Amino acid sequence: MTVSEALDFSYHYSDETRARKSSPLKSCIHYFQNPDIAFLGGGLPLSKYFPWDTIEAHSSFPPTTTGEMVNVSHPVSQKNTCLVKLENSDKIDSVDSRDIPLARALQYGFGMGQPELLSFIRDHTQLVHEMKYTDWDVLATTGNTTSWESTLRIFCNKGETILAEQYSFSSSIYAAEAQGITVFPVPLDEHGLIPERLEYILDNWNPQTKKPKLLYTIPTGQNPTGSTLGNNRRIEIYRIAQKHDLLIIEDEPYYFLQMDAYERDATQRKFTQFKSQTEYLKSLSRSFISLDTEGRVIRMDSFSKVLAPGTRLGWIVASKRILRAYNQLHEMTIQNPSGLSQAVVAGTLNRWGQSGYIDWLIGLRREYTEKRDLAIDGLLKCLPETSIFRVTPPTAGMFFTVNINASAHPEFATTYMSNPELVEKAIYEKTIANGVLVIPGSWFKTNGNTEPPQSSEGHTGLDPNEIFFRATFAAVTSETLLNGVERLSTTLKEEFCL
Amino acid sequence: MTVSEALDFSYHYSDETRARKSSPLKSCIHYFQNPDIAFLGGGLPLSKYFPWDTIEAHSSFPPTTTGEMVNVSHPVSQKNTCLVKLENSDKIDSVDSRDIPLARALQYGFGMGQPELLSFIRDHTQLVHEMKYTDWDVLATTGNTTSWESTLRIFCNKGETILAEQYSFSSSIYAAEAQGITVFPVPLDEHGLIPERLEYILDNWNPQTKKPKLLYTIPTGQNPTGSTLGNNRRIEIYRIAQKHDLLIIEDEPYYFLQMDAYERDATQRKFTQFKSQTEYLKSLSRSFISLDTEGRVIRMDSFSKVLAPGTRLGWIVASKRILRAYNQLHEMTIQNPSGLSQAVVAGTLNRWGQSGYIDWLIGLRREYTEKRDLAIDGLLKCLPETSIFRVTPPTAGMFFTVNINASAHPEFATTYMSNPELVEKAIYEKTIANGVLVIPGSWFKTNGNTEPPQSSEGHTGLDPNEIFFRATFAAVTSETLLNGVERLSTTLKEEFCL
Repeated sequence: MTVSEALDFSYHYSDETRARKSSPLKSCIHYFQNPDIAFLGGGLPLSKYFPWDTIEAHSSFPPTTTGEMVNVSHPVSQKNTCLVKLENSDKIDSVDSRDIPLARALQYGFGMGQPELLSFIRDHTQLVHEMKYTDWDVLATTGNTTSWESTLRIFCNKGETILAEQYSFSSSIYAAEAQGITVFPVPLDEHGLIPERLEYILDNWNPQTKKPKLLYTIPTGQNPTGSTLGNNRRIEIYRIAQKHDLLIIEDEPYYFLQMDAYERDATQRKFTQFKSQTEYLKSLSRSFISLDTEGRVIRMDSFSKVLAPGTRLGWIVASKRILRAYNQLHEMTIQNPSGLSQAVVAGTLNRWGQSGYIDWLIGLRREYTEKRDLAIDGLLKCLPETSIFRVTPPTAGMFFTVNINASAHPEFATTYMSNPELVEKAIYEKTIANGVLVIPGSWFKTNGNTEPPQSSEGHTGLDPNEIFFRATFAAVTSETLLNGVERLSTTLKEEFCL
Repeated sequence: MTVSEALDFSYHYSDETRARKSSPLKSCIHYFQNPDIAFLGGGLPLSKYFPWDTIEAHSSFPPTTTGEMVNVSHPVSQKNTCLVKLENSDKIDSVDSRDIPLARALQYGFGMGQPELLSFIRDHTQLVHEMKYTDWDVLATTGNTTSWESTLRIFCNKGETILAEQYSFSSSIYAAEAQGITVFPVPLDEHGLIPERLEYILDNWNPQTKKPKLLYTIPTGQNPTGSTLGNNRRIEIYRIAQKHDLLIIEDEPYYFLQMDAYERDATQRKFTQFKSQTEYLKSLSRSFISLDTEGRVIRMDSFSKVLAPGTRLGWIVASKRILRAYNQLHEMTIQNPSGLSQAVVAGTLNRWGQSGYIDWLIGLRREYTEKRDLAIDGLLKCLPETSIFRVTPPTAGMFFTVNINASAHPEFATTYMSNPELVEKAIYEKTIANGVLVIPGSWFKTNGNTEPPQSSEGHTGLDPNEIFFRATFAAVTSETLLNGVERLSTTLKEEFCL
């Protein structure tokens, strides 16, 4: 297959992005590294005034999960400690090439991210996604929350409309709405966004209203539904995006929390043992960016769910042209993620190596599979078998949902005046009183519409009497998790008099 | 003096801020800490999956600069190493109370900033600024660049006008312009913003145009002019802000880089030896926030210039009400600064203590005074005494300027067609060719106007034939600095045939 350059989507930029100028100071920052120039240009403090002489970060090398060596530089026989030790020194050149020199990490500069971090992420991206066009790159971010808000600033003007799953991460929706952007819902089911519905909506878009240019999606372990989009649907959705000139923003914090399918019979249950990391990588759902031959996909990735949220470190994969717009915005906002976070993460990952990092991710997969099984086992054990409740075991992410036919509630027509949201609210309050916190599905509802509105046929979703609760198996210990699902089940049984 | 609560300035909020909703998920995050609730609410990874067992940061205790003890917990006789050692442990309660527990630093949460950091910053704020109203607080940020961009989002709609110094930090100006906000210039001289001009502009504001609600100012060591606003001017400007209902945004990264006045005769030169830290603190220019009895000032502060830019860590001081708007925006953008940065900075500062930190700042003052003297000495030695050039030694910050009468250039009327900006451009190119980088003043020019325009009398500034270059004495070693000012002087002498 011949790969070519990304298309130019700059016609999709917002007025802001078109108006945004780079500071002229950026045009001469490179002289800072030039030994022939006395740099009296910018307000950079000397690194000798930085207070820290040494920063150390200790981790363990991930245990090998596939029988392969973790990485060449670290024979398994050695002690399993991975030490990142950074010293503030003028001799930046003598620093271990796997590390961001501390004096540089603590200084201004490198708006795209530090080279030692970016090169690891680039290799990782190519390994996992096998990129299909030439001029892609990665940009370090402070995580997907900022990345999404920035994406809206870069592409959307007030009054425009974007598409998102019918239930989606509420902060993402609210970020758009605060900017005066309408979020129009696309129905989804237990297999994620429904391509036919997406196509119907766009084919029948009200010509009196401006067509959406962005589709925001959480394809893997979707928040809140826990659904994961199948590969065929992804291919279909990419085709529809091409047909209707949509950019796809894939928000993929849970991508590596993909698990084995849930097996109800615990005796039949076994973890997939991958023969190789390649086999593991092939088992993953195809990402949108891996299908992208045009630079139409912007992938938002993050270390929050796979290393730690407090690093406030993530990255975007997209065409170089589009990343320039992000970089230009970052110059006026975050500048770049914390140098300490970048230094600790890059130092650790460069010691683990690509293979060690994949081992780490396979290890997480196993942990999350166990927790998922525990939660679903508990639910299926405690919840009576009835068509009122539906539990769909997720195959990725941190969330599972309990869908409920609210109209089966004994007081549906009386106390709750046939309003499923009132049933939801009552159950929510009961669950807290019973000592478990789960989140009402309605909190995630996307229900924007254009003015004049779109035809209602395209975006009607679930059975209107169906409500659901989102729960996570990730945040607590196994014991608390079991208590939690038991309390949830008890609440539901009480409420529905079962 | 009786202190009272801040006024409510929420009528100044932008449409965005009015429309912005908090995620309902935030309303239940507190259950995460509740032992009676099984928290199946949010996608928080367990801290046992965070890879780092230990993070260490080594610094030195600042040498005492005033003869006082650094702090009580650290007698001077002890070894001078300050070690922050954070361990990822379930026993969060057993952690040293000066430290942010690593498991918490690496987790989601604490959008205002981690308590251990905030409490240090609050004490510091009260110590330095002696706050004059009751309901103020501090909010951790990723530095003043983001803080300023967020400030614009919080208060300004597209098409509105703000005020700023006639020459100001170009990134700040461009951030406003990209949002469609006009930045109207207020003249300044070597003592900073001119109150009479500010008042004239506002008194005579064109009634056909909406009045500005924000004044953006860098009062201390102004960027690019290096000027520092005197206390009387600050008091005047605050009065004018009250009269015209302006909010003052003080961008103060250089506040603690205040120095002794420049003394030309090196034999007469001596560093002020403060008898006490109190005396040092009294020597500082009054901040706007220290004058503020109404919650009208928003102070943007940063560790970038006094610890290290790569921490990407700063803070805002303002009324609690206003900080809520920032916090709500942060929920959709940065969430919070890097937990690693917060943990390293808080651990270090809490060991240094308030007094140790002040010692550190006094130490920096001395370093910057020496560098400033070196630069100005060099310039005055190399530059011929002529009215063509004017060097104003700064009393704060990182910058000095060389002002130049462009019309004195031999080719002013010929090659440069009486256009001072062409002279500036030619000199800029020559300086680089001669091996020194200084920044043309025109790069910092604020020249927005309303539509219809304001009367031109108020905002005419410097002599139109005066140009200037901004240079910094901060970014390079003393040797390079001396080479730099020599090369700059040589260039100017050549250009003006002196």
